[in-house]
Amino acid sequence: MLELYHSGLTTCSKQVRHCLREKGLSYVSRYVELWNYENLSPDYLKLNPNGVVPTLVHDGNPIINSFCINEYIDDVFPEPALRPADPKDRARMRYWAWTADEVHLSLARLTHERMLKAALKDLGPEDLQIMLRSTPVPEKRERWNLLAKGGYSADQLQAALDNVLFIFRRVEEELSSRGPWLAGATFSLGDINMVAIVHRIFELYPDRLNRSDFPVLNGWWERLMARPAAAYVYAEDTDEVPQRPPRKSIAGIAEFQV
Amino acid sequence: MLELYHSGLTTCSKQVRHCLREKGLSYVSRYVELWNYENLSPDYLKLNPNGVVPTLVHDGNPIINSFCINEYIDDVFPEPALRPADPKDRARMRYWAWTADEVHLSLARLTHERMLKAALKDLGPEDLQIMLRSTPVPEKRERWNLLAKGGYSADQLQAALDNVLFIFRRVEEELSSRGPWLAGATFSLGDINMVAIVHRIFELYPDRLNRSDFPVLNGWWERLMARPAAAYVYAEDTDEVPQRPPRKSIAGIAEFQV
Repeated sequence: MLELYHSGLTTCSKQVRHCLREKGLSYVSRYVELWNYENLSPDYLKLNPNGVVPTLVHDGNPIINSFCINEYIDDVFPEPALRPADPKDRARMRYWAWTADEVHLSLARLTHERMLKAALKDLGPEDLQIMLRSTPVPEKRERWNLLAKGGYSADQLQAALDNVLFIFRRVEEELSSRGPWLAGATFSLGDINMVAIVHRIFELYPDRLNRSDFPVLNGWWERLMARPAAAYVYAEDTDEVPQRPPRKSIAGIAEFQV
Repeated sequence: MLELYHSGLTTCSKQVRHCLREKGLSYVSRYVELWNYENLSPDYLKLNPNGVVPTLVHDGNPIINSFCINEYIDDVFPEPALRPADPKDRARMRYWAWTADEVHLSLARLTHERMLKAALKDLGPEDLQIMLRSTPVPEKRERWNLLAKGGYSADQLQAALDNVLFIFRRVEEELSSRGPWLAGATFSLGDINMVAIVHRIFELYPDRLNRSDFPVLNGWWERLMARPAAAYVYAEDTDEVPQRPPRKSIAGIAEFQV
């Protein structure tokens, strides 16, 4: 049995949901409401000591980190293959899957600025302290603290956007010189992991990033989004993406009464 | 033919040198002197558009990123195996190899504070500008700029050290519950990639990190360092680790006359 603990349309959750759908695997969807800090609950931390989504539980055994989960899925369920057979192409597949992780700090800055800032504003000081105490990874704690203090400067946001654009240009070159997919002839985990990044950026910066400035990347994006697995995963009105509940105070959630 | 562009005892270079030695593969060692910015030279950027070391060139084909290079080596030269056969152990191997990458920002802060700060001090303003212009990845450029402006606050350094300690405690738990290696019974790329991080931290913070506070991690470390491949890679007086030359001005290096 496969159970996926995920949070719907967040970047890493999309990567694993997409991989499972491309494989045609059925799984139990276990939605984790980040809004109510369910990822920081003691029960969830037993599955995932870092307190982040997603976690895949396969016959009771938890696998963590979206990059590792997707390779695991391809190890255990090899058909249809999502890693190219040729080692050189496989290295390119991994390079792009890895790049999708490497860019996450830039992405976190931009996501905060355009999606989360408002939500954090009404987090009371008591809730903030509980949240910081419950967040296991110090690097994440430092980031939340910084966000609570007002977030990023214009220079930091520009640097994050520059970083994303550098990667978009690299994608453009890669697809132009070899395509049609990031690892060459074979659709792969490289495409699955990277498209989650591209999707978020297009969503956040429709006013500053013109898709037509990256014609080859955009062609790849359209081909990719036309795949049934992607169409399902990126839709906003599926069973796997419930409506956000009204925000609770973290102090009011029993398991955080520590 | 295998050629490794590397910089000796830097973290990612050690990871790949170690993997090649465990495999018993012979390769041409191409030392890249970071001190003289050889990693930013136009020729090197053709091999590695991110301007970082290492790069493995196999029969003329460049493979970049230490994580991807080590998986590539195990794909092409499967004996002795450095990835466990069982998919669950393989996922753990990848999780630790990935963690060795995830921690690199914390490591970069601490390395700057205790190793690079003095070197950067005598970088003149003209050299700094040339270096910033020549650094392709915007995130790295932002970091260099920040360092040139004085570096990290005490809070930021503490957060980085806390982050490293969190990971050390996770290693301690993992080895205690399953060992003797990070992926279980099999020595793997997870051990190779993580030990490069542990080595750097022990080197930087002998005054603040007591190895005996992590008895299981320390036992793993000693077992690992006793392997002939590790003993060679981590030694300071081998052919692959030439003495640092006197520092040149970047402006005096012909290829940077842009």
